[in-house]
Amino acid sequence: MKKSIGAQTIVYPTPVFVVGTYDKESRPNVMTAAWGGICCSSPPCVTVSLRKATYSYGNIVEREAFTVSIPSEKHVKEADYFGIASGKKTDKFSATGLTPVKSELVDAPYVEEFPFVLECKLRHTFEIGLHTQFVGEILDVKVEQAVLGDKGLPDIEKIRPIVFAPQNQEYYGFGPFLGEAFSIGKDIRDPYGS
Amino acid sequence: MKKSIGAQTIVYPTPVFVVGTYDKESRPNVMTAAWGGICCSSPPCVTVSLRKATYSYGNIVEREAFTVSIPSEKHVKEADYFGIASGKKTDKFSATGLTPVKSELVDAPYVEEFPFVLECKLRHTFEIGLHTQFVGEILDVKVEQAVLGDKGLPDIEKIRPIVFAPQNQEYYGFGPFLGEAFSIGKDIRDPYGS
Repeated sequence: MKKSIGAQTIVYPTPVFVVGTYDKESRPNVMTAAWGGICCSSPPCVTVSLRKATYSYGNIVEREAFTVSIPSEKHVKEADYFGIASGKKTDKFSATGLTPVKSELVDAPYVEEFPFVLECKLRHTFEIGLHTQFVGEILDVKVEQAVLGDKGLPDIEKIRPIVFAPQNQEYYGFGPFLGEAFSIGKDIRDPYGS
Repeated sequence: MKKSIGAQTIVYPTPVFVVGTYDKESRPNVMTAAWGGICCSSPPCVTVSLRKATYSYGNIVEREAFTVSIPSEKHVKEADYFGIASGKKTDKFSATGLTPVKSELVDAPYVEEFPFVLECKLRHTFEIGLHTQFVGEILDVKVEQAVLGDKGLPDIEKIRPIVFAPQNQEYYGFGPFLGEAFSIGKDIRDPYGS
């Protein structure tokens, strides 16, 4: 039996994206955003939705670029801080001791200590309501060598990304391997279909 | 030391959204989509990005509505199947034995056996490239009573949603609680800021 809980913004899993930008004085800033995800395979694009009130909003509009750094579990405290403090008044890098690195491809910084980074050029700006959705074309992905697996692909069990649970406002880690995609469902057949 | 792995569509976590639609003959269909997420708090909106080649694409354009059903770990096999088979040729509900339920609010069906459902009215259609991004306004969220926690909020540990790892094409479960959001980072301070 299902119960209505109203029009809430909850999905599972929700990501913890640390969005990196430069301000007008070229000071690096980061903010944590949970509203976003991949939106296109070709060109490869990712979205982040920000309120106009955020410092990062103006930075993205100005520089037409951003990065998405994905923190590991061990940096959950810093990731949370990046979503609480505002870059208008604080230098979040100096507060946390983390290191901004200038992207070689786009006009934005990323977080050196985080294992997985997307470098994005702003392609579209969509006004939805309280949030503006920025669509960035992913020009490159940079991965810490220590989290690459056998096949040279990023290994999620080494990255240990954080999952956000909206509404309950909780962070969770990653769980056990459940199965191979495009594989474990293959033996299901529609008895009446082709 | 970071290594470039090229312009790939990978973020962590990536969701497993089961998108429900009706076709022209009002046959219920579902497909699994990994490209999407919340994009706005007010109005509450969620995105799913689909290729035009999918059967669901035409259904959403026609009916201007869709649902997002979020499967639990125990239905990972069915969720994978929903991403492999096409509704053009198969009845995915009869193949899996799962039950379509007509939403009372929007012109789309959801999956009865999945614990968490968003009912969405199409608000925007954004052409990005290979994928078209549909933005749906969340009119209601329906949650299985058994997965509600003490405060009447959905409990992620009872829902046990699936996490998709793109590129490696693997499914993972949920992990341990890491901390409270907007809380565990509060004691970090910028020594030079306010």
